[in-house]
Amino acid sequence: MTPLASSALFWLDIAGIAVFAASGALAAAKAKQTLVTFAFFASITGIGGGTLRDLLINAPVFWVHNSWVLTTCLVVSFAVWKTPKRFWNERAIDWFDAVGLAAYSVYGAAKALAFGVSPLTAAVMGVITACAGGIFRDVLAAQPSIIIRPEIYVTAAAAASAGFVVLTLAGCPFAIAGPLAAVFGFILRALAIARGLSLPSYRG
Amino acid sequence: MTPLASSALFWLDIAGIAVFAASGALAAAKAKQTLVTFAFFASITGIGGGTLRDLLINAPVFWVHNSWVLTTCLVVSFAVWKTPKRFWNERAIDWFDAVGLAAYSVYGAAKALAFGVSPLTAAVMGVITACAGGIFRDVLAAQPSIIIRPEIYVTAAAAASAGFVVLTLAGCPFAIAGPLAAVFGFILRALAIARGLSLPSYRG
Amino acid sequence: MTPLASSALFWLDIAGIAVFAASGALAAAKAKQTLVTFAFFASITGIGGGTLRDLLINAPVFWVHNSWVLTTCLVVSFAVWKTPKRFWNERAIDWFDAVGLAAYSVYGAAKALAFGVSPLTAAVMGVITACAGGIFRDVLAAQPSIIIRPEIYVTAAAAASAGFVVLTLAGCPFAIAGPLAAVFGFILRALAIARGLSLPSYRG
Repeated sequence: MTPLASSALFWLDIAGIAVFAASGALAAAKAKQTLVTFAFFASITGIGGGTLRDLLINAPVFWVHNSWVLTTCLVVSFAVWKTPKRFWNERAIDWFDAVGLAAYSVYGAAKALAFGVSPLTAAVMGVITACAGGIFRDVLAAQPSIIIRPEIYVTAAAAASAGFVVLTLAGCPFAIAGPLAAVFGFILRALAIARGLSLPSYRG
Repeated sequence: MTPLASSALFWLDIAGIAVFAASGALAAAKAKQTLVTFAFFASITGIGGGTLRDLLINAPVFWVHNSWVLTTCLVVSFAVWKTPKRFWNERAIDWFDAVGLAAYSVYGAAKALAFGVSPLTAAVMGVITACAGGIFRDVLAAQPSIIIRPEIYVTAAAAASAGFVVLTLAGCPFAIAGPLAAVFGFILRALAIARGLSLPSYRG
Repeated sequence: MTPLASSALFWLDIAGIAVFAASGALAAAKAKQTLVTFAFFASITGIGGGTLRDLLINAPVFWVHNSWVLTTCLVVSFAVWKTPKRFWNERAIDWFDAVGLAAYSVYGAAKALAFGVSPLTAAVMGVITACAGGIFRDVLAAQPSIIIRPEIYVTAAAAASAGFVVLTLAGCPFAIAGPLAAVFGFILRALAIARGLSLPSYRG
């Protein structure tokens, strides 16, 4: 991997962690929780997906030997705690989540490819990286998991993740494949949030 | 392990994955989900238990370096998606689940024994392999987990798994111990489905 | 680590497993479950947190190569099953849980420090060790997770865990830092149970 790709990965990672952490803290805010619960939800949402990915591909879990990942989650949760409520609303949670979804899908697929798993597995790892944290957040907040809500969500992650894997296998450099795939996934998710875009449901 | 045992394990594994994947896809169908959610539930249910087992016994996670396991889940979910609804009903989910439960209990215990864990742990690994995917499916579908439903379920997995470990420790060859224990577990679960067989509940 | 510290860790571990297992079995009793479900809940609650910790810090999962941990959970669940119901009540579950919370926070942080993770991570590992089993229990029992209940819970674990890490880094020997931090966490949780001590909730 080139230094540029490596550096881009690092910032995609920070972006994913921070926005997911914010969506977790906002879920805690919505449920009128305490500062400690804010930190807990921010951390679970921010690092849950990447943690599951690392365990599955047998990589060292990315936040265990650093302090900055957890610190990011703690700082974000404190910032949300201190911000007046009118700055945030349910829509805001969705948009934060959408940015994290796109960034983390690509990042997760890229890391998995770097660990030499099969292309299909790498695409799935992107989805896991992007979706698992939000699922943990929903299950722990006793909300219907985002997985069973009708709008496009996993699909957007899968599109970004699979798009990145296909572009990379086709020889496209990371600095192009990464942003391209992330923007593609974000647009799909944005259409779901703004226009209610959804896949057809099963009718038997 | 003899080649025969190894091959039998391989097919038990496919059987477990496919039927659990079908039960996951059927849960998605019941909830009127999209094709992507079908694939998600089929995969979680099909590979969730084995994944947890592999993480716990420190084996490489079985589907990460292959493509055929995930492909099986995707094919099964597409098949369920395309099949007319009247082919399936709640009973069908139960029966698919019962076959997977029996096959996967034995397979999980066998794999754990092959990794040299203690006999009690191996029996528990069989239960985890067989039950965890279904539990993940229930939790994510926001259904009461199968664990807290009164009928025999974990018990059947434990019977198959422990039966296999005991037979193996007693020197019984795999080709006999495997089918025998799986059929034993299946019969228990079948009695639960067909006749409501259940363990006594706590009355204090 | 001195033999004394090592031995103290061993007994803290047993204490944590047994009381968490009891709280799991009591949750099963409250839900009028069967003996098999008692064992399942006792095990999940007793070993869930430590299992997650070990996976994250890449330690061999502590109960896989022994039989005594699972045996402890099975014995405890059988004991709860056999005990008349009037011996137990909802309060009892809380108090068992509080002891386990304090003991396991310290134990988890100590083990993580021994594996060379960063201090912040070690403190978080204490919280995970103490809280994850109870969270698994609540999610599987379809109860609101203890994380989103208003009273002090994670906070007490975090206090014990962070207190232990700070004392240890300051050079305090294990035999003093351990009990001191555990008692500190227990008092916080006890005040929550007995007097409803809670952190301020978010008001926006």
